[in-house]
Amino acid sequence: MAYRASAQRRDRDQDMRQRILACAQARVSKGGFAALTMQALADDVGIATGSLYRHFSGKGELAAQVFSTASRIEVDALGVILRGPGSPAKRLAAGLEQFAARAWHSRRLAFALIAEPVDPEVDEQRLLFRQAYAELFVELLEEGVRSGEFHLSQLNLVAACLVGAIAEALVGPLSPTACAARAAGAAALDLATVSQSLITFCLRAVGAPES
Amino acid sequence: MAYRASAQRRDRDQDMRQRILACAQARVSKGGFAALTMQALADDVGIATGSLYRHFSGKGELAAQVFSTASRIEVDALGVILRGPGSPAKRLAAGLEQFAARAWHSRRLAFALIAEPVDPEVDEQRLLFRQAYAELFVELLEEGVRSGEFHLSQLNLVAACLVGAIAEALVGPLSPTACAARAAGAAALDLATVSQSLITFCLRAVGAPES
Repeated sequence: MAYRASAQRRDRDQDMRQRILACAQARVSKGGFAALTMQALADDVGIATGSLYRHFSGKGELAAQVFSTASRIEVDALGVILRGPGSPAKRLAAGLEQFAARAWHSRRLAFALIAEPVDPEVDEQRLLFRQAYAELFVELLEEGVRSGEFHLSQLNLVAACLVGAIAEALVGPLSPTACAARAAGAAALDLATVSQSLITFCLRAVGAPES
Repeated sequence: MAYRASAQRRDRDQDMRQRILACAQARVSKGGFAALTMQALADDVGIATGSLYRHFSGKGELAAQVFSTASRIEVDALGVILRGPGSPAKRLAAGLEQFAARAWHSRRLAFALIAEPVDPEVDEQRLLFRQAYAELFVELLEEGVRSGEFHLSQLNLVAACLVGAIAEALVGPLSPTACAARAAGAAALDLATVSQSLITFCLRAVGAPES
């Protein structure tokens, strides 16, 4: 009985953690990490702020958890394309196109993940996930070099350059300032232009035919 | 007299701020932002921790100040080369070479500036300075396009890609883990290799002749 009661409590705790994380992610998707305060989140979940602290040590831990859950989805989605069918250059282009489009369609979340100033716990996760992206690119670059499509050495370094270029290319167009300007009707880059420029940049950089 | 006394106090405060900042920068250069604690800093300066808070609101403000002072020096040093004599492609290569060498010779500081997880105040400054670097590259790209040496459109986006690529290429080799491995005699990238790979990547990406 004691065992069963504690198992039930564990399940309940697990459910509550999931509910909190879902609410936290909804907040970040809408207003970035800036919108993720413990007070507002407790209100969303419908619990007292004190109860929130029974599940998470604070905003830093929550933000890092939202970050890693959302980033894992992006890494996996990119991996499906980069490891999919087609020539390495075509997969690189398709992967970049999808990555940019996904970011574009969840702009506030994408900006939060890539660049929003936030607790150091998230910065730690950013370093780890950039490494995960880089590893995907290294695989693809190795394949492209073997097939003679890419002309490169120092694949780890080139993969890091790609990760940095992609992130930084999106920071500007996704930033809340740029989005506000676009909403106000200002001329701004559209997704197709950003996507195409990024593809050209990256294909050239790896010494691939530009297609 | 009252005026003079307050002017003297202002000067003294100013001197103390400078002394604190110099000690803070020395700490970051040696051990990164992780080594910048209010207690240790107060000890270095030879004042009470409470007095430190009379001059700076906390670690975040101090870290941001150290960041922006050190980054300003790097932006200016890069600007001298990018706006100097020579063809745009040669200047791009020389600027990258100098940037990588300066980072290499102050590795701990460079890693702290580029990527060390730290207070959001520093993340804010990172966004601003990346913009400053991007503006330098936009100027150079415009010149290179006019002279027919670079083949590009969307210069702002390409400049952002360059900034991201450069930062990310250096994060790995400069990281404390990589430095420890190198110190322990592990095979690791050397400056010449990093520098040359980065130059090749960037020249190709802007559609310039490679050497």
